[in-house]
Amino acid sequence: MGWCGHLATHLSAHPAMASLLRAAATWGLFPWRGYCSRGTQGELSKGFVEALKAVVGSPHVSTAAADREQHGHDESMHRCQPPGAVVWPQNVEQVSRLAALCYSQGVPIIPFGTGTGLEGGVCAVQGGVCINLTHMDRILKLDPEDFCVVVEPGVTRKTLNTYLRDSGLWFPVDPGADASLCGMVATAASGTNAVRYGTMRDNVLNLEVVLPGGRLLHTAGAGRHFRKSAAGYNLTGLFVGSEGTLGLITAATLRLHPAPEATVAATCAFPSVQAAVDTTVHILQAALPLARIEFLDEVMMDACNRHSRLTCSVAPTLFLEFHGSERALAEQIERAEEISQHNGGSHFFWAKEAEERSRLWAARHNAWYAALALRPGCKGYSTDVCVPISRLPEILVQTKEDLKASGLTGAIVGHVGDGNFHCILLVDPEDAEELRRVKAFGEHLGSLGGDGA
Amino acid sequence: MGWCGHLATHLSAHPAMASLLRAAATWGLFPWRGYCSRGTQGELSKGFVEALKAVVGSPHVSTAAADREQHGHDESMHRCQPPGAVVWPQNVEQVSRLAALCYSQGVPIIPFGTGTGLEGGVCAVQGGVCINLTHMDRILKLDPEDFCVVVEPGVTRKTLNTYLRDSGLWFPVDPGADASLCGMVATAASGTNAVRYGTMRDNVLNLEVVLPGGRLLHTAGAGRHFRKSAAGYNLTGLFVGSEGTLGLITAATLRLHPAPEATVAATCAFPSVQAAVDTTVHILQAALPLARIEFLDEVMMDACNRHSRLTCSVAPTLFLEFHGSERALAEQIERAEEISQHNGGSHFFWAKEAEERSRLWAARHNAWYAALALRPGCKGYSTDVCVPISRLPEILVQTKEDLKASGLTGAIVGHVGDGNFHCILLVDPEDAEELRRVKAFGEHLGSLGGDGA
Repeated sequence: MGWCGHLATHLSAHPAMASLLRAAATWGLFPWRGYCSRGTQGELSKGFVEALKAVVGSPHVSTAAADREQHGHDESMHRCQPPGAVVWPQNVEQVSRLAALCYSQGVPIIPFGTGTGLEGGVCAVQGGVCINLTHMDRILKLDPEDFCVVVEPGVTRKTLNTYLRDSGLWFPVDPGADASLCGMVATAASGTNAVRYGTMRDNVLNLEVVLPGGRLLHTAGAGRHFRKSAAGYNLTGLFVGSEGTLGLITAATLRLHPAPEATVAATCAFPSVQAAVDTTVHILQAALPLARIEFLDEVMMDACNRHSRLTCSVAPTLFLEFHGSERALAEQIERAEEISQHNGGSHFFWAKEAEERSRLWAARHNAWYAALALRPGCKGYSTDVCVPISRLPEILVQTKEDLKASGLTGAIVGHVGDGNFHCILLVDPEDAEELRRVKAFGEHLGSLGGDGA
Repeated sequence: MGWCGHLATHLSAHPAMASLLRAAATWGLFPWRGYCSRGTQGELSKGFVEALKAVVGSPHVSTAAADREQHGHDESMHRCQPPGAVVWPQNVEQVSRLAALCYSQGVPIIPFGTGTGLEGGVCAVQGGVCINLTHMDRILKLDPEDFCVVVEPGVTRKTLNTYLRDSGLWFPVDPGADASLCGMVATAASGTNAVRYGTMRDNVLNLEVVLPGGRLLHTAGAGRHFRKSAAGYNLTGLFVGSEGTLGLITAATLRLHPAPEATVAATCAFPSVQAAVDTTVHILQAALPLARIEFLDEVMMDACNRHSRLTCSVAPTLFLEFHGSERALAEQIERAEEISQHNGGSHFFWAKEAEERSRLWAARHNAWYAALALRPGCKGYSTDVCVPISRLPEILVQTKEDLKASGLTGAIVGHVGDGNFHCILLVDPEDAEELRRVKAFGEHLGSLGGDGA
């Protein structure tokens, strides 16, 4: 989410946010003047555009409608709200000068990575300048002994993992899309591996950030990449998930993990949502070192079968994955099967070969598109709710009933090991009445938990 | 560290701290007025002490010299700097009223838990009121299915783990001392289990905090204990490690872990510091799921042998521990031995029985006292430095040479899996010249890395 994104939503989502925002504004940490008092509403003066060009060079500034529109939306159904201009800085000095320029003029800034978000974070609700950071795409430093790497904002997670292929290391956070890693920092991205490797919160060691006034900040100190440190306030943690509101991330030092020696994936069908979630809790309680555990309801499973040509049962399903040595995996598989069967799980399918596993996870990652195909011509709208795991069955059942009562089409997928699930609603964007029902449904669901990622 | 603790140190330790502190002061997040302009220097007016009594009741306020002195130091060599009064609030409402009272009068506040810190955080350098939170010692809620517990600030980690004994769960962060859990939050405590279970940063889900003005804040929202959430700024993370400067922690929701099915500990001696650290890196690279890996240099090992009646070789040594199923442990032990032997490790001692393991870890945890016994009558001073693991051998060797050149007595222990080590110096507090050398040594060492925990 950019500096002028959906902050109202965030404000209401957090009781302490309002006071923090007021506070932050007093120390100039973000351009509230621009946001609060006089957003540019898409209009930027000719002189201002010339000033942008003076910083990054003419070829790297665009006010063309096509570019502005392309940068005014992400992959969600949120209405396109184009910025007044798009700029492509080539280095951190230019980012700093751009920030200082916009800040001095009270013009909102929206950082832009791959545009793969699902929550409308890049929509320029108050106009302003979209700063597309994808031209800064170097991998600056790999430190295999310290398990860390420094990347510029244009580097995506797939690019990084390709680069790491021969190092014996990998970066596990995987939200599905091939998002930019710094965008994943800004949104505190999570994904299917979070249950074992944590979310972005757990895997960022240092950030280089351009503050709104143009000043450069290294959140953990310049050049530092300690596995842990207790010196000073945890500024790194504050910027992870700050959604672009506190500054522009121009480099991130990320924690890497040893690539697993062996990997096995599986699917298992369950007679009910309760049985699938109970299995999750029991597997976690048994301290089985799961790498991934994902839940798909029967609607989602049906959509994935069709879209990705799987042949899974149309039932509440868990997708599992284990990482470890061959021997460790054999034991983990045995115990996971025991626990699943005890909860009524059946139709186990174990995928040991890389190709089979890729097919399964591609299906899971394409769940969004599979859901879209359920109602051609409609747009997707994804809720993102975190709840305590103990309340998950009850809330999932309730959500499915609410869906039915609202007459909406929706499919559910969840990072169930973290109590985080998405309900993907298929919506006709031309149908105002349906949009109203979607909004009411989303608000009710949001009241049950917290924002996920 | 209290609101008026060694902030100057912290300021210099972090490049962004100064601006954050200035900023925070403008939104009243902590009583800088009291700290900066007119600390009470031990003197509190009679009327003010009466006002404290009106809040918590006469029996829970003391201005007796013995109480004030007992609260003016921790277990470190930092000079005792007693507060003007000590109060023992009984509940969060009283904490809130105390905070409001002190804040309105510009009187510094120092939160106090068990006083087991090693960095002088509780010293009342500007006088003020010490708020001893140990009377608030209830375990408020255990949620086994959600793997979390809510504790008041007087609950220590050992008390919690005793309480959890039959639940199949435990709280793994273990800094050695039986510290209060909220004190561990405030100092971002770490310890021997961090390599597997993380530090306090990774294990706090929510905090109830009394802000200086008296207002109550739930950092992740009231009653919330999600495994993950991306809603709003990461305030929980900001308060973890804030050293008492941002508010008084009056309750913490902590993440629990399944108790390991089986546990094996080991010691292994190495021909050099380099060999011990190389072994650590290789074990981490092999993704062996270590629970603990601790380094002791030969001076420390000698001290532990004497103090705790071990019979280990007097050599650079690793203490290891593995958690898992019986079968998983057998494999992990085999591979750890292979890697250690490859690096010249010898004299393996595997402790499988609970009693043997306890003896080993008690020895490690008593390293501080073992080191003190090296030079009876002297005080201990512990450095706390984090460095990238790749630089650890070089820095450890350098540190040992610096020790020798400075003519100081010091022993080294390290949470080596995190690149964090402590050099425990034995110092004659009456010898000003020696204190000067200790200071110079500590400053030089600090310049090599960041603060640990």
